[in-house]
Amino acid sequence: MRVVQKFGGTSVADPDRIRTVADHVARCKRRGQDVVLVISAMGKETDELLRMAHEVAKDRPGREMDMLITAGERKACALVAMALSDIGVPAQSFTGSQAGFNTDTNHENAKILEITPVRIEAALDQGIVPVVAGSQGVSSERDVTFLGRGGSDTTAVALAQVLNAEMCELYTDVSGVFSADPRVVDSAQKMAEITFDELLEMTATGCPKPAMRSVEVAHNYGVPLHIRSAFTWESGTFVVREYAEENAVERPIIRAVTHDLSESKVTVVDVPDKPGVSAQLFRALADHSVNVDMIVQNVSEQGRTDISFTVPTEDVTRTTTFLEGGLLAQIGAERMTADEAIGRVSVVGAGMKSNPGVAATMFETLAANDINIEMISTSAIRISCVVAAGRAEEAVQILHSAFGLDD
Amino acid sequence: MRVVQKFGGTSVADPDRIRTVADHVARCKRRGQDVVLVISAMGKETDELLRMAHEVAKDRPGREMDMLITAGERKACALVAMALSDIGVPAQSFTGSQAGFNTDTNHENAKILEITPVRIEAALDQGIVPVVAGSQGVSSERDVTFLGRGGSDTTAVALAQVLNAEMCELYTDVSGVFSADPRVVDSAQKMAEITFDELLEMTATGCPKPAMRSVEVAHNYGVPLHIRSAFTWESGTFVVREYAEENAVERPIIRAVTHDLSESKVTVVDVPDKPGVSAQLFRALADHSVNVDMIVQNVSEQGRTDISFTVPTEDVTRTTTFLEGGLLAQIGAERMTADEAIGRVSVVGAGMKSNPGVAATMFETLAANDINIEMISTSAIRISCVVAAGRAEEAVQILHSAFGLDD
Repeated sequence: MRVVQKFGGTSVADPDRIRTVADHVARCKRRGQDVVLVISAMGKETDELLRMAHEVAKDRPGREMDMLITAGERKACALVAMALSDIGVPAQSFTGSQAGFNTDTNHENAKILEITPVRIEAALDQGIVPVVAGSQGVSSERDVTFLGRGGSDTTAVALAQVLNAEMCELYTDVSGVFSADPRVVDSAQKMAEITFDELLEMTATGCPKPAMRSVEVAHNYGVPLHIRSAFTWESGTFVVREYAEENAVERPIIRAVTHDLSESKVTVVDVPDKPGVSAQLFRALADHSVNVDMIVQNVSEQGRTDISFTVPTEDVTRTTTFLEGGLLAQIGAERMTADEAIGRVSVVGAGMKSNPGVAATMFETLAANDINIEMISTSAIRISCVVAAGRAEEAVQILHSAFGLDD
Repeated sequence: MRVVQKFGGTSVADPDRIRTVADHVARCKRRGQDVVLVISAMGKETDELLRMAHEVAKDRPGREMDMLITAGERKACALVAMALSDIGVPAQSFTGSQAGFNTDTNHENAKILEITPVRIEAALDQGIVPVVAGSQGVSSERDVTFLGRGGSDTTAVALAQVLNAEMCELYTDVSGVFSADPRVVDSAQKMAEITFDELLEMTATGCPKPAMRSVEVAHNYGVPLHIRSAFTWESGTFVVREYAEENAVERPIIRAVTHDLSESKVTVVDVPDKPGVSAQLFRALADHSVNVDMIVQNVSEQGRTDISFTVPTEDVTRTTTFLEGGLLAQIGAERMTADEAIGRVSVVGAGMKSNPGVAATMFETLAANDINIEMISTSAIRISCVVAAGRAEEAVQILHSAFGLDD
């Protein structure tokens, strides 16, 4: 049985941790698993490298940033390979390039174009554990590329797919995916199973692990994921295409309540309600690399309307400066407001597709607790409300309880 | 004019130093030089990586060590390239592999087989400063290789040769090559010029910079070297094939006095003086990877003799254990002694070839100061004496004076 296992950050933060990971891999090998490892940088090393780059230069070419950042994964995977050899498990480290990860030339956030894992297959044939440096590849211009923060999860999932692995295990510092952030909700439950669709909505709305892009790739290719702890080694959360039918009755309609305090709300006030205005606004923001998330356009009154959207709080100043620098006038808007003190609270569950009334329950629950809703957006299996930042955690708690997730 | 400049260690130890190096390169560019940079790891990073490897594993495969260690040079060269871009000097970092360094598969101490600097030439054609990661390459098995400690000097010299550079500048933390270690001899002089032959003998007998292997390569290919300071930026020592004739009269016969306290003396006592015994001894030591330096066989008395040799002090225990484990008996030796408290003092100068009496002067000077000579070895332009470790620095001082080097 082939298994891809990904470790990184705190799970390989120091020599002790690296030896602990090696022991675990040796145990899996003894159980007959053909293990392929994907390793990301040790502890806070990536942050440290970024800090140095910022000290050295204001202008930091992406090509050079990638050469710098990928050094962290190489170090970690060489050390893991040594730790394995040391306990009698043959192992070899591979850079992204050696592992066959061919990418585009979009430095700092490259996309995988093709994987040709010839050397990984050869190592497996010889009983060697391949230890692959995460989040990296080689571009069509033969330069080193970085897949971005959290890219090691993507490396692991993509490798599992191309190697036909039976499972991709993402080891982390939490023991699985929870029905809410356990720091906020005491009764948050670890889920034994979750669907890709639900996990995608959760990661998009504040669930920190795993990286959203890796879930998308796993979803697209049907790679079974297991999100589990590198500290307790207990079984974690399996991510599946759909739940087995027989359990359907007991399953709650809502699976999880997530929240995200990292965004701010920007409202463009009193803009003409005519075709093309929104397009003009959001195209300009996109061209300016502003990452817009939720968008809500209020009901038109007398031919004019308000448009609200959320952006990462770190981009607020850049966004408002850009808007006030001419864009507001161009689209005929009166003025704009920005509010950094917001929180987004979401309920997620595939069950809401066949259970009307979830939205009503959510709004009623918030209203009964006097929590005002500032924006609403929905997908087929998610409802998100923007509320005041100071009320967000309370909202998570009462919704977790209202949707029967407390036990 | 093409110049290869090598920086490493303390000269790129932190962001401030990296920006200082970038400023220097920008100044050289403005003066019309086509600069190619070779960068080794920042500060003590290589030591730090080795320390981590030792903590992680006792068995450390060379392939994995090379993957680990070379990460240090990659980080440093990416940061230097960023610092250059930041001040408007177009620059690109290149790994050993990208720079075209093809090596054998002898990990941790690989040899360069061929250099195909296609990408470096292309960068130069576009006015881009290539920033090459030192001491690394790619093996015939497509694995990352490390050229060994001090290998960045070799990278610089080899690159200067293959690019037909007019000068290879090795920047360091000293301002050049001195007639003796300035910490030992107050009146030690910085030499404006020295020949390859002399510098080779000096580096072989205790002069710390540059790395001996790089001097050999420079010598073989006639690459002009300039050893200079990355802190004072003053002109340092030029290494030449031979001195210009006109200065010959003023030049002292002896150019420098070096010393080395890092070796120990091992004596195999009372061994049969017959053909093949030495060969058997040193072949066995070589097969056991003991790095023997000086060898002296005393005059035979009644068909038996003593053989003394020096080894790095860190290898003494391994050497004596190996000898006493059977080799002594095999070659018919009585016993062995080891002495770690020795120092090797050498006088170096091409002038001694045409000036007899240098050896006599050296021995007389030591004798007049009551310093006993334990071993002697000579080359055409060097005489080395092993003395008690506690007297070595004194020996350097009196020889420096006796050979007229004090002024």
